[in-house]
Amino acid sequence: YLDTANYEPLDEAKFEYSWQWAYKDRYTRAGITAILGCGFDPGVTSVFTAYAAKHHFDEIHYLDIVDCNAGDHGKPFATNFNPEINIREVTQKGKYWENGKWVYTKPHEIHKPLTYPGIGPRESYLIYHEELESLVKNFPTLKRARFWMTFGQEYLTHLRVIQNIGMAGIEPVMFEGREIIPIRFLKAVLPDPGGLGENYKGETSIGCRIRGIKNGKEKTYYIYNNCSHEAAYAETGAQAVSYTTGVPAVIGAMMYLKGVWKKPGVFNVEEFDPDPFMEQLNKLGLPWVELHDTDLEL
Amino acid sequence: YLDTANYEPLDEAKFEYSWQWAYKDRYTRAGITAILGCGFDPGVTSVFTAYAAKHHFDEIHYLDIVDCNAGDHGKPFATNFNPEINIREVTQKGKYWENGKWVYTKPHEIHKPLTYPGIGPRESYLIYHEELESLVKNFPTLKRARFWMTFGQEYLTHLRVIQNIGMAGIEPVMFEGREIIPIRFLKAVLPDPGGLGENYKGETSIGCRIRGIKNGKEKTYYIYNNCSHEAAYAETGAQAVSYTTGVPAVIGAMMYLKGVWKKPGVFNVEEFDPDPFMEQLNKLGLPWVELHDTDLEL
Repeated sequence: YLDTANYEPLDEAKFEYSWQWAYKDRYTRAGITAILGCGFDPGVTSVFTAYAAKHHFDEIHYLDIVDCNAGDHGKPFATNFNPEINIREVTQKGKYWENGKWVYTKPHEIHKPLTYPGIGPRESYLIYHEELESLVKNFPTLKRARFWMTFGQEYLTHLRVIQNIGMAGIEPVMFEGREIIPIRFLKAVLPDPGGLGENYKGETSIGCRIRGIKNGKEKTYYIYNNCSHEAAYAETGAQAVSYTTGVPAVIGAMMYLKGVWKKPGVFNVEEFDPDPFMEQLNKLGLPWVELHDTDLEL
Repeated sequence: YLDTANYEPLDEAKFEYSWQWAYKDRYTRAGITAILGCGFDPGVTSVFTAYAAKHHFDEIHYLDIVDCNAGDHGKPFATNFNPEINIREVTQKGKYWENGKWVYTKPHEIHKPLTYPGIGPRESYLIYHEELESLVKNFPTLKRARFWMTFGQEYLTHLRVIQNIGMAGIEPVMFEGREIIPIRFLKAVLPDPGGLGENYKGETSIGCRIRGIKNGKEKTYYIYNNCSHEAAYAETGAQAVSYTTGVPAVIGAMMYLKGVWKKPGVFNVEEFDPDPFMEQLNKLGLPWVELHDTDLEL
């Protein structure tokens, strides 16, 4: 088993690993492997973190995953993947890990401009993202772990209105004698994310900014990948958000088939050896860049 | 027959009197009366214009109907009447009459702050409104006739997003095996306009600003009614937008039943004697105020 995102119940705007982690004993006894969250984020960001912990730090203390989509698809509003999941994800309360517990924020309460390589400063919003749950469990030295995502003002305005008018709702509404879930119908009227690729310009930039200890000294480290929407589309007919999710899933499958990520049980990707995965990222179109002792802004 | 608004075809975002005026001969031959557009606007605004032309001008040259809703219903977004009609009406192209022909504008292209009595300045947008069609026909001295309506920035932002995401669409979308018209479904998720009354504060102010000739001299004239949402709700359980539409319809019916607006054919309200109608407005909760030789701002 391999996936790129958390299971989400149909009737609740919520995601967590508990339902999948509950299969650990059964997978172990059956001698089969489950690889959870093997897209870009979660996925590559988790492998980046494991790679940093393995090679560059004795202890990682502060982790900030930063996700910038500086692309322009030329449409007034569209989501880059399943609108139902996208809207549920970005309109939920913010949440991050600090000093051994989860801290909650209002949606988009915490934000600041962060500078992305080759892109420049972009307003970035602290949101909850699923890899935080497994990373703080698998890297217990973390004092703080946060996730930041860029949103344009227009995107946020559209989201706010979609919520105000009730179209983000997941409770059924009676319409012409039948129950209809508003956000499902919204998905039917919004542009198909798969159709955004053709005129999509610009790049994504996703990475991990980490502060920790190496040989008794504080150290900072930033590892990231930039992916061009146009190059992704030219190669595959899909935009960068699809590309950066699909390629890591392919690599995850390759890791399993080569036997290097094959062990009985249910695992998040940071629990495997990151090195062979990192090598394939460079070969298969998602090269990564490391910056040492740089200003993390965070 | 009596109505308060134009017929609109189901499959086209358009309204005009042609379909109803086409019944004129048949109504005349049958000896029955049709009274078209007997709400506030159209309706009272048309009667105001007829009253001005009858009593205060030899010729009316410039007519600006000004419609301000300075109320606050406390909800992020709601329409004051049928959302389907409201959104279709205010998102269409602008259109006004000048020098014998219709001039078209982009939606909300022309706007300026106008000062409403007891309310103050409010940004007002030139939109097309149905009474212009009959008024320029029945008052051929008009060199220009326009309609202005106030909208708040938040209201316009919501409308813009609703259009961007496709929820204002009147073309069916396939959803779960059935055709659904987006704007109809939107109507099902938005607050019911009938339920807005309870906490609705503030007033509407709707009137006619007219410039013309009396005894060879130019003259200006402004006639308006202000209606309080709270007072309307206290009296009837409905907010002022419903109240200002319902009371004139009652008066129109009274005019017919008293025999003063009873003649065979199809008529817009400005074709009848305005005086008995104006008298009833003062008695039935919609008193009007006249300002002579005032600054029309237009």
